[in-house]
Amino acid sequence: MTLRPFGAVSSLERLNFAPMSNNRTELEELGEFGLIKRLTENNKAVNPSTLYAVGDDAAVIDAGDGMVKVVTTDMLMEGIHFDLSYSPLLHLGYKAVVVNLSDVYAMNAIPKQVTVSIALSNRFSLEAVEELYHGIYKACTVYGVDLVGGDTTSSLSGLALSITAVGEAKKEDVVYRKNAQEKDLLVVSGDLGGAYMGLQVLEREKKVFKETSGVQPKLEGNDYILERQLKPEARKDIIEMLEQLGVKPSSMIDISDGLASEVLHLTDQSGLGSVVYEEKIPIDPTTFERAREFHLDPTVCALSGGEDYELLFTVSQDDYEKIKGNPNMTVIGYMVDKASGNHLIDKREQAHPLTAQGWDPILKKEED
Amino acid sequence: MTLRPFGAVSSLERLNFAPMSNNRTELEELGEFGLIKRLTENNKAVNPSTLYAVGDDAAVIDAGDGMVKVVTTDMLMEGIHFDLSYSPLLHLGYKAVVVNLSDVYAMNAIPKQVTVSIALSNRFSLEAVEELYHGIYKACTVYGVDLVGGDTTSSLSGLALSITAVGEAKKEDVVYRKNAQEKDLLVVSGDLGGAYMGLQVLEREKKVFKETSGVQPKLEGNDYILERQLKPEARKDIIEMLEQLGVKPSSMIDISDGLASEVLHLTDQSGLGSVVYEEKIPIDPTTFERAREFHLDPTVCALSGGEDYELLFTVSQDDYEKIKGNPNMTVIGYMVDKASGNHLIDKREQAHPLTAQGWDPILKKEED
Repeated sequence: MTLRPFGAVSSLERLNFAPMSNNRTELEELGEFGLIKRLTENNKAVNPSTLYAVGDDAAVIDAGDGMVKVVTTDMLMEGIHFDLSYSPLLHLGYKAVVVNLSDVYAMNAIPKQVTVSIALSNRFSLEAVEELYHGIYKACTVYGVDLVGGDTTSSLSGLALSITAVGEAKKEDVVYRKNAQEKDLLVVSGDLGGAYMGLQVLEREKKVFKETSGVQPKLEGNDYILERQLKPEARKDIIEMLEQLGVKPSSMIDISDGLASEVLHLTDQSGLGSVVYEEKIPIDPTTFERAREFHLDPTVCALSGGEDYELLFTVSQDDYEKIKGNPNMTVIGYMVDKASGNHLIDKREQAHPLTAQGWDPILKKEED
Repeated sequence: MTLRPFGAVSSLERLNFAPMSNNRTELEELGEFGLIKRLTENNKAVNPSTLYAVGDDAAVIDAGDGMVKVVTTDMLMEGIHFDLSYSPLLHLGYKAVVVNLSDVYAMNAIPKQVTVSIALSNRFSLEAVEELYHGIYKACTVYGVDLVGGDTTSSLSGLALSITAVGEAKKEDVVYRKNAQEKDLLVVSGDLGGAYMGLQVLEREKKVFKETSGVQPKLEGNDYILERQLKPEARKDIIEMLEQLGVKPSSMIDISDGLASEVLHLTDQSGLGSVVYEEKIPIDPTTFERAREFHLDPTVCALSGGEDYELLFTVSQDDYEKIKGNPNMTVIGYMVDKASGNHLIDKREQAHPLTAQGWDPILKKEED
């Protein structure tokens, strides 16, 4: 991307109230990761305090005294990231903070501050905004984080939320995506696919509710997966546990887009390949049952469902004894050389290329 | 604001697909500052690294070695903060970064990093997004700032931009809004009201263009005020100049909402009053002429127009000799005790209470 000469004259030339250019490449053709790559491929940092810029869960900024600050940000748009017909504002506020804290933990850092910006249409009352902030403050309290700033503004339609989290770590403790080593074990915390199945249940009940006015949704027995979707937690406990166990991961990422996508981020950035065993992927019984009920493959839900906010990391085989049998962590595979590629070994020991559906922007038609 | 018990059970109880509460207080009743006050009145920081949270141009975070990081964030929504029929995307990107850097300078800090989040509908092509990023990178280059992260996502309608800037300063150099002293001089950089008059010209020409298709806008002679509106600069030079002059302001704020609103922020947070002389307020000749042409009072444009991104600060009278005659800075008044209130002395030496129209959220009707 080359910067063109730019100043007052060119600004006035451009002010012709006419479309800028006839060229039009649809964003759909690139997808989210393609767009980010395109927009940042010539990005160069000039400040020595910028230790790591775009390309990990958070940016890393030197803070002197052997310490760093990590900074991460997320934007949540109504109708894209949340549906207020079944997401209580209290939970939305909580989740909006938590997903950012998850990115901080994924750097092996401790979140300390957040800023919260909201844009609101006149559909929202003070009571609704307070409900949202109750959730935001609750997450701050639970995770020991301070709300230090933000912006409050209007929107022509719907709610937009943008949160930035700042964390701290010793410089030497920061874990990047890029430093996994061949033969390292691939480890995942908790279980996967639950948030996605929670979403399926909510969407189903919303449909029933719309079609049959007054019928209350059937949510019994789904507490676990509904909570995974509506009120996820960031794995602070895993970061603390790893420290106590004396295990420093060689690479780490949080699982927001599904296991497959995140494994590929780690291997891509570390210049490696991977082997993942389907039978090792941790899936909760409720997730499994509900997936079957919806005629979905539970493994696919875990690989591509997303929003689990678990941690995926690699550790040296030397650390295996320290994490073996730990109920919070599951070894699901290992890293291999780049040429071997990324494979999923299914339950019949067949190898399949591991591919990511990831999250591509669903560029919906603009409603005029 | 009290946090209610909150967990899986209450979450499921709340999932009844029905409106939350019958109470409804319109946000318009509070205005932006009222809403912020309400949402943050019980906000308490728990981390020792949080040196200053909500209530200034940026939050201040301890960074060890006698240094701090300052963090500020702004959200810009299409249709509220910008109109793409006359704001070129190149300029919008530039301005979106600059307005955040302006907040960093207002803390007497130097911006070093920014994160940029964008939400886009399918109306936007890759070429449009690249145009926006050219402006973003251009501002980064001009101000020596690194783009270190962000988020790229979809929107159901229009463009939303959220930028966070991180700056650094020696702890002892940070200038807050709250430390102005009685008798300190009130000083403003540059001139005021230009951005507002630029907007008036653009809105007028847009109207003509809409009513008479094909007629190109008349923008000649308005270069200065159009650039003030479309491509403002942050006053990095003033911060450097003050350092060279050996002047540390006792309080400082950037002028985003109009001079009156910002004077009141400084006096309110410093527990003081103020006297501002109308004839001292710096107004550019183009701003003045255009205001007259629009039957507007140029002083009102300067007091309430906003978006000038100049710096307003207070200095000790002992520093007067150092700034006297400096063409970049104008002494417009001085601080008095709180009981004396805030007054504008007009050109006939009449005193008027200084009031802020400020910026209240224009909570427009949601378009369904």
